Amino acid sequence: MNHAVKGFLAAGIAAGIKKNGQMDLGLLVSERPAVAAGMFTNNRVTAACVRLDRERLAASGTCRAIIVNSGNANCCTGDAGMNDAIAMAKAPAGDLGIDEEEVLVASTGVIGQKLPVEKVEAAVPALTRMLSPEDGLAGFARAIMTTDTVPKVVTRKGEIGGISYTITGIAKGAGMIRPDMATMLCFAATDIGIGRDDLRRIVAEANEKSFNRITIDGDTSTNDTLLVLANGMSGAKVRTDDDKITFSETLEAVLVALAKMCVRDGEGATKLVEISVVNAASHADARRIADTVANSNLVKTAFFGQDANWGRIFAAMGRAGVDFDPERVDLYFGDVLLVENGQYVGRGAENAATEVLKQPEFSVRIDLKAGVAEEIAWTCDFSVEYVKINADYRS
Amino acid sequence: MNHAVKGFLAAGIAAGIKKNGQMDLGLLVSERPAVAAGMFTNNRVTAACVRLDRERLAASGTCRAIIVNSGNANCCTGDAGMNDAIAMAKAPAGDLGIDEEEVLVASTGVIGQKLPVEKVEAAVPALTRMLSPEDGLAGFARAIMTTDTVPKVVTRKGEIGGISYTITGIAKGAGMIRPDMATMLCFAATDIGIGRDDLRRIVAEANEKSFNRITIDGDTSTNDTLLVLANGMSGAKVRTDDDKITFSETLEAVLVALAKMCVRDGEGATKLVEISVVNAASHADARRIADTVANSNLVKTAFFGQDANWGRIFAAMGRAGVDFDPERVDLYFGDVLLVENGQYVGRGAENAATEVLKQPEFSVRIDLKAGVAEEIAWTCDFSVEYVKINADYRS
Repeated sequence: MNHAVKGFLAAGIAAGIKKNGQMDLGLLVSERPAVAAGMFTNNRVTAACVRLDRERLAASGTCRAIIVNSGNANCCTGDAGMNDAIAMAKAPAGDLGIDEEEVLVASTGVIGQKLPVEKVEAAVPALTRMLSPEDGLAGFARAIMTTDTVPKVVTRKGEIGGISYTITGIAKGAGMIRPDMATMLCFAATDIGIGRDDLRRIVAEANEKSFNRITIDGDTSTNDTLLVLANGMSGAKVRTDDDKITFSETLEAVLVALAKMCVRDGEGATKLVEISVVNAASHADARRIADTVANSNLVKTAFFGQDANWGRIFAAMGRAGVDFDPERVDLYFGDVLLVENGQYVGRGAENAATEVLKQPEFSVRIDLKAGVAEEIAWTCDFSVEYVKINADYRS
Repeated sequence: MNHAVKGFLAAGIAAGIKKNGQMDLGLLVSERPAVAAGMFTNNRVTAACVRLDRERLAASGTCRAIIVNSGNANCCTGDAGMNDAIAMAKAPAGDLGIDEEEVLVASTGVIGQKLPVEKVEAAVPALTRMLSPEDGLAGFARAIMTTDTVPKVVTRKGEIGGISYTITGIAKGAGMIRPDMATMLCFAATDIGIGRDDLRRIVAEANEKSFNRITIDGDTSTNDTLLVLANGMSGAKVRTDDDKITFSETLEAVLVALAKMCVRDGEGATKLVEISVVNAASHADARRIADTVANSNLVKTAFFGQDANWGRIFAAMGRAGVDFDPERVDLYFGDVLLVENGQYVGRGAENAATEVLKQPEFSVRIDLKAGVAEEIAWTCDFSVEYVKINADYRS
């Protein structure tokens, strides 16, 4: 599939920030100033780049380039960290012939170590020479990976007034993920034309339905960033409410696909599980139960063990802080009803449920019979490999 | 050490509830009616035994015996489950010559399967014949274990008005534990004399300082129970406020020791870690940060990896929902200052901190410099073994 988006160029390179010599520096450039919207971590501890991007988006709302490193979070690094973030943004400005204020920055990696910004500066000339519309996006996607095992790129096309436009989203994120604001790094480029306020609202909503619905390990990064750039170069332009809905659905499809790719590639994950809570008294109730089940280590280790241990799901639901009647709850694995009105259906149902758990992707549906609200969370299983990856991460 | 408490007898036996033939039924008996206090899970989904005990404690507040099984949680089992809990309480009443209403019940094990109460009834005659003051407590402690690797018994003696009294506490619990009310099963027997209201208040406070300060995996059981029986047979009697303080300190020492034993024996745990938050603006802030750090999978896997990855601790603090200034925070591993005012101290400090992490027990101290409140949480590391234990639990 062709991921190219009109007027966007990208590249990735190994700048020597990662010890293992893998690609660790990416650059995404728009030929024209793009309207920009960003969502960032809710963590009280934020990386310098997050603070810098917030400032720059508040000041102008347009952007020409995003530079990303995946070897160092540049977080808990004090005033030097902010200076390094500014220097990192400045690095490509000269070669690109743009104002340094038009560059946004993202970083991910180890927290608390000084960013070797001189390595960024040294690599930028080669990086800008490599910029290209299609291969460049693939390189960029590789360059932002940390513990990810596969690059994550999703492209969708839409049409407004007979004119086609493209959205390509690129994400990374395999750990430190919970449904608590824009989790992980994600950059989306589109050639649609759209106003700044509309873009911001649509990005916030799409983020809520995608990255805010996933969890891998319940932790929240200090560096989470979602940036969307719209440069208008397709000629398609968002004018009417219908246009907004069309674009918003297309963007949501891109972000949901990327969010699910992140969970499927969660650290050590072998399964992607959709937790669906239906017929809740309120959306808040449904959300709280879905999130608590999706984050339970005991539920997630049972998924890893392919064990239809519904008791752990009930135990997790019970600590979600929601008032519900356990004796009305139905629980399904896939289409298999294993628990009806809070009671175990029987051995035959359990055997069928166990078959569902052997699939790489399946759903768990919890019917509260308390109202009409429903919510979804996507999670993965919790494997021996997760622990190994995270015990050894810095060594 | 002699764990005997005047007027208490106990025993444990294999009743065939556990598939592997290990001991799974315990009985604790007081020769005289004992004043009783109980704390139970906050989970919205509660086992039948928890509901029965709550009723019985509310009705009378005295107790002659506690019967416990560790093979089946008798939870999510509907009306049949409540009937089984009542039958389990009744089982030893005849042999002991006591009223069945004077018996409390606890269960732990798999959720959602019918309790084989006929196995309990069949084993009770042999169990009551085995009752003894000292060996019996050891048997009881073994009989209530699930994934625990060691029995957990703690005895402390105190003195009131020149008369010595004893408290022996017995606990089990190695998973589904987070600091959210009386977590796991714990039974404490004392020969002190004390009024019902005083005992209830003192037990609630001691629980708050012990079992509500520990976490293993952030999950909360549906069956958590702490029961304390005081039969007055030592002759020591709580009368004055000073007596209350003395007894409360002794009980707290027993429960804290048991709580730490539970964490040290946490599923797959290789380390006991004390998370201490000092100089917080409020107790609530201190508590929230200590709990969030103690429950973070990323922090706990780093402990397992013996990696002084303080960035993960900062990231966890940042999502605790507390307003604090990261750039004022000092962080110690043991006595080693690794982060000062939010900044990494350096390689020498890190090497020293890594040595601390190699110990089986150590502390992490977080100084917020925002006030004078402090709180502690005890946690363990998160190992490959935890996942293996919980992936395979029911198979």
